[in-house]
Amino acid sequence: MIKTNATAAVISKNSRTQLVADRETLMRIFIRPESDASRQTLVKYMDQILFGLHEFLTRHVGVTQEISLKELSTRFTDTVISQHPEKKLADVITDLIENIAPHAVNVASPYFVGHMTSALPFFMVHLKTIVAALNQNVIKLETSKVVSVIEKQVLAKIHRMIFQKDDAFYLEHVQNPHTTLGCFVEDGTLANTSALWVARNSLLAPKDGFHGVEAEGTAAAFRAYGIKRLVVLVSRLGHYSLRKACGVLGIGNQNLIPIDVDANNRMDLSHLRENIDKLQADRRKTRILAVIGIAGTTETGSVDPLHPIADICHEYGIHFHVDAAWGGPVLMSEKYRHLLSGIQQADSVTIDGHKQFYMPMTCGMVYFNSPNLPDAIEYNAGYVIRQGSVDLGRKSLSGSREANSLILDSTLKIMGTRGYGLLIEHGIDTAHEFAEEIKQRSLFELMTSPELNILTYRINPPCIRQQMAHASDSATVILNEQLNTITRKVQQLQREAGKSFVSRTTLRNNGDDGSERVVFRCVIMNPLTTISILREILDEQEDIYNRIDSYPEPS
Amino acid sequence: MIKTNATAAVISKNSRTQLVADRETLMRIFIRPESDASRQTLVKYMDQILFGLHEFLTRHVGVTQEISLKELSTRFTDTVISQHPEKKLADVITDLIENIAPHAVNVASPYFVGHMTSALPFFMVHLKTIVAALNQNVIKLETSKVVSVIEKQVLAKIHRMIFQKDDAFYLEHVQNPHTTLGCFVEDGTLANTSALWVARNSLLAPKDGFHGVEAEGTAAAFRAYGIKRLVVLVSRLGHYSLRKACGVLGIGNQNLIPIDVDANNRMDLSHLRENIDKLQADRRKTRILAVIGIAGTTETGSVDPLHPIADICHEYGIHFHVDAAWGGPVLMSEKYRHLLSGIQQADSVTIDGHKQFYMPMTCGMVYFNSPNLPDAIEYNAGYVIRQGSVDLGRKSLSGSREANSLILDSTLKIMGTRGYGLLIEHGIDTAHEFAEEIKQRSLFELMTSPELNILTYRINPPCIRQQMAHASDSATVILNEQLNTITRKVQQLQREAGKSFVSRTTLRNNGDDGSERVVFRCVIMNPLTTISILREILDEQEDIYNRIDSYPEPS
Repeated sequence: MIKTNATAAVISKNSRTQLVADRETLMRIFIRPESDASRQTLVKYMDQILFGLHEFLTRHVGVTQEISLKELSTRFTDTVISQHPEKKLADVITDLIENIAPHAVNVASPYFVGHMTSALPFFMVHLKTIVAALNQNVIKLETSKVVSVIEKQVLAKIHRMIFQKDDAFYLEHVQNPHTTLGCFVEDGTLANTSALWVARNSLLAPKDGFHGVEAEGTAAAFRAYGIKRLVVLVSRLGHYSLRKACGVLGIGNQNLIPIDVDANNRMDLSHLRENIDKLQADRRKTRILAVIGIAGTTETGSVDPLHPIADICHEYGIHFHVDAAWGGPVLMSEKYRHLLSGIQQADSVTIDGHKQFYMPMTCGMVYFNSPNLPDAIEYNAGYVIRQGSVDLGRKSLSGSREANSLILDSTLKIMGTRGYGLLIEHGIDTAHEFAEEIKQRSLFELMTSPELNILTYRINPPCIRQQMAHASDSATVILNEQLNTITRKVQQLQREAGKSFVSRTTLRNNGDDGSERVVFRCVIMNPLTTISILREILDEQEDIYNRIDSYPEPS
Repeated sequence: MIKTNATAAVISKNSRTQLVADRETLMRIFIRPESDASRQTLVKYMDQILFGLHEFLTRHVGVTQEISLKELSTRFTDTVISQHPEKKLADVITDLIENIAPHAVNVASPYFVGHMTSALPFFMVHLKTIVAALNQNVIKLETSKVVSVIEKQVLAKIHRMIFQKDDAFYLEHVQNPHTTLGCFVEDGTLANTSALWVARNSLLAPKDGFHGVEAEGTAAAFRAYGIKRLVVLVSRLGHYSLRKACGVLGIGNQNLIPIDVDANNRMDLSHLRENIDKLQADRRKTRILAVIGIAGTTETGSVDPLHPIADICHEYGIHFHVDAAWGGPVLMSEKYRHLLSGIQQADSVTIDGHKQFYMPMTCGMVYFNSPNLPDAIEYNAGYVIRQGSVDLGRKSLSGSREANSLILDSTLKIMGTRGYGLLIEHGIDTAHEFAEEIKQRSLFELMTSPELNILTYRINPPCIRQQMAHASDSATVILNEQLNTITRKVQQLQREAGKSFVSRTTLRNNGDDGSERVVFRCVIMNPLTTISILREILDEQEDIYNRIDSYPEPS
């Protein structure tokens, strides 16, 4: 065992208890709580978390900020790891819950409608606890065994939800070690990166003595294929992770070409075709790597016309990727799945588990229409992932991975598609109701109607609205700036008040003419968020606005 | 609320209970267990996991495989997500623990010494549970608040452990929103990728109308800089993730140049210098992106001579990255930290939390000597990560991220450097004892002595050993093949017996002359793994060998 002289674990020194790391203490806290008192503390908090999560969060965690970031920063400036334990285990846990959690953000509050993070079904925490306890590493069969098999099954289930192939297809691939229906990754950014990585390697594949882009790099690949650049096309509402993916992959983020959107924030098909034709005309120099459709834009929740985009991609032979990080689970709602029609024609699809599958942070996934496509990213290594094995790390951006597939597999059994469908329908239906409510209040202007469960609006008081109706272009710009200032201020004051949280973003007109509109952005995914809570949020915004209006602004 | 007619939750049908998803049932299971009976089941298992983790795993999880993968595969071929819930929550949890966990791998067993995954201190599961319950998303201050501040503090602590800058440095940077000491990523693969991404963008930075490699891509960057390829140098024992990183980043994985190792499996410095000189001579065509030193190779646990490599990199002005995914925490042992001397001169360092910090799957980290270096990978987006903000997603490969920093921060307080030091010293000391034991047994040959807590050995019975001493080159090749077959077979049979697990890998001689030696690989990190357990493992291997030897091999 550990070769250290055991010393007394706790030395009383000047009436202050000092903790010392030694073999005995270490073994004790490695295996179990130090004492009965310590065990009681842990039992109390774990019981609160596991069986009263919502009450626990309401009691312990602030919705937003009670204390300024600046002040908080000054409290955490200790940069030395202490040699001996600073605190007993139970005291660290108590500190975490009593002193630190209150300054976290209660993303589970029904008044927190600002981001794509929300309440979890309480059992998600149980499932995560089990996954942590088993501590399997899915990179390799030898450290995961049954989890690898379950992961392949759950990947097949989601693949089927998206692509709807027949029984024979899934029978062939569900447990086939040579094919890959999809892959778990850390988040949507890495899912999008994985999809473009696969597309890049497939397009610039080995040929005539050239060993492929993965082996020789993009510059050599461009020489072998006689091209000067690769481009990726996506609506101007595409997530920033796509720029990052192009940067990482050596394509260059300025080669992500933004396509205009229509009045409903969906990709403008004629502008897409126009761009493709222009780029194809320059085919000797430029090659289109992929067109990306979005199923649920981050800012407005709009869904691109996937079916027509798929047809265009098919016509030109271009990889069609769908970023359904947000919208994917809408496929489980009978009422709304038609909104994603065409997704089954995609070559690859991104879906996030920690968004509308309501899984804990984080779980990204990428799916491939053709289960041989990911062969383009295969790596093997004798000590960890062997050729021809079931080791799931063979075709994956990351190496070591947590067994999140166990959580998704269990949850699908507990919820069924109908359970998820109800959550999705609650969000979209409530968003529609909320949009009507906004339209009826004279202080607000609905900026983007909800297609899914996201909408944007801003403050536009009748006095300014009337002026805008008759203003010149330059006067409109100035009035717009005024509205931006007001909306920005109200959002900030509401956040600081700490009762509720609506996020804000800046919408741009097509063509980047410089006209920017600051808006409130509301994401409705928490089943506890009701229309009456949303009315309260509007009441509070009206109230804040009225107070600003009547008093001079704080400097 | 959700707009569905509530129907009876449980419909009895042909004596079989059928579950139906409806609004009421959904809300109930979203918030709390369905019934007292269900609650009791959850309480029972959660109590076993949280307060009797080691007994729980011993009772519920097999060390390796009782059932063949093939048979297991046939049980998981259901590819349809059922419309209504398949099982009640309590039944899903029971199934997970009683029927699925037994086919996972008990990586916590002291007899599991095959991979870099081991027992966790029991409180890690508590910490993971708290992190899951809070469900913060560290991409952005608005969804993490205090966690962002704590993360910056713990990054500074580990940075200080590695780079040992002075108080003024850490005071300036610990909570500075404009600088970045390090970043949490999913795992070591993505940490290495992040480091090379930063190095790539720094080397091929914007200049004279060129907007930088991140914006324009590698091919355009090569044109702007007048070069034909980038190369990365690492010992031939470098982790496969480095090949993958070069592939992903558009550099090309064949541009990862393997440097020979010496008799102790450490990078051969003269071969390194020779390669650098040759490549520098071709400077108009080739540029060296980075030299990578390894602090704990995956196969043999050896540590490259970091100090001299740092000096060489400094001399030539080359980015020096250290892959300390495995060995980094050795810095917390007073007895052994000298083995990593020179790491403080690195430009970037990878460390894994789920390896020798004993954190649950997964937690990779990358650190930068200069806190401005990561500016080269900055991204902003109005709706999520704002320029100049504390949003930690601004300089990071992934987007959404789990609050793993809370686990590391808490654990450092509970363990202290001395607590971790004791774990590290147990592993290395025990590995040395084990090496002596192997040397004393005539059946075995120690192939690589432990520098850290990893060693390799193989079966080499006296009869073959004597023949080898006098054999010609070609005869040696044949004898070697025989040894490979024997070691491979014994490893397989021991794994299948299910009592213990030692992994195997294939060591190659310098220069890839084709001579491959199959070896057992033993990783000693579990504080419960004692020398007497390791002796039992050798006894079992001797026993298996004797049985194979005396009977015809199974076909």
